[in-house]
Amino acid sequence: MKQSVSLITLGTADYERAKAFYMAIGWSPTMDIEETAFFQANGVVLVLWSRDKLAADMGVADDGARWAGVVLAHNVASNAEVDGVIEDARANGAEIVREPSPTFYGGYAGCFRDPDGHVWEVAHNPGFGLTDDGSVILPQR
Amino acid sequence: MKQSVSLITLGTADYERAKAFYMAIGWSPTMDIEETAFFQANGVVLVLWSRDKLAADMGVADDGARWAGVVLAHNVASNAEVDGVIEDARANGAEIVREPSPTFYGGYAGCFRDPDGHVWEVAHNPGFGLTDDGSVILPQR
Repeated sequence: MKQSVSLITLGTADYERAKAFYMAIGWSPTMDIEETAFFQANGVVLVLWSRDKLAADMGVADDGARWAGVVLAHNVASNAEVDGVIEDARANGAEIVREPSPTFYGGYAGCFRDPDGHVWEVAHNPGFGLTDDGSVILPQR
Repeated sequence: MKQSVSLITLGTADYERAKAFYMAIGWSPTMDIEETAFFQANGVVLVLWSRDKLAADMGVADDGARWAGVVLAHNVASNAEVDGVIEDARANGAEIVREPSPTFYGGYAGCFRDPDGHVWEVAHNPGFGLTDDGSVILPQR
């Protein structure tokens, strides 16, 4: 297996609500077909699709759980940008589960949950490189 | 919010087991520090970290659920490569939740769960472009 993640699919209980939320905070679908939204991002593609269909297609039993230990991070270049994204998410109905504050690794981060409960960390980490497209470049050892 | 995903963190109940699994199927940590493994991938960084610490750090209540509607896809260039990755995952103890088979979108895919229950789809999708680093390029409309 090559070291790559091609797509990240977030299952949703309400497709229109999920798509409206991501568009409200700045995402624009590259493709929107048969109630599936594909957002071309940095290397990966983020996808919104029916959680029921996703579970069936993957062969996974779905008990409707809200969190199973997955977090997506969106890194930015300054603490002020963290505050800005968190306020925008809040204004669009996201639950802020961690108010922006210093982190144990010497950065600054806030966390929100999207309307389906998926967790995003919005972070400024001065220890990591960050490209213009939002990709983190780890320090070389 | 820019259209980017910087890191994907998979919470684990057993760090050494999780790291050993990903290394067995071909991933190599770029950084491994304080029981946190960072794998530089295409644009994104995949991270393995304690699920308990992740929940606490994000401010999320964790009820131990096994699936909350998130799937990571690893796209490859042929059906034979799908079979190869799935067999490698199976040989290393992954649960195969979908045996490799044709998909509704005209591709071919199999799905496995890692030792913590995180779901991966391994897919060949002839309708999408695929770069050498495993990134999907959506068709332009």
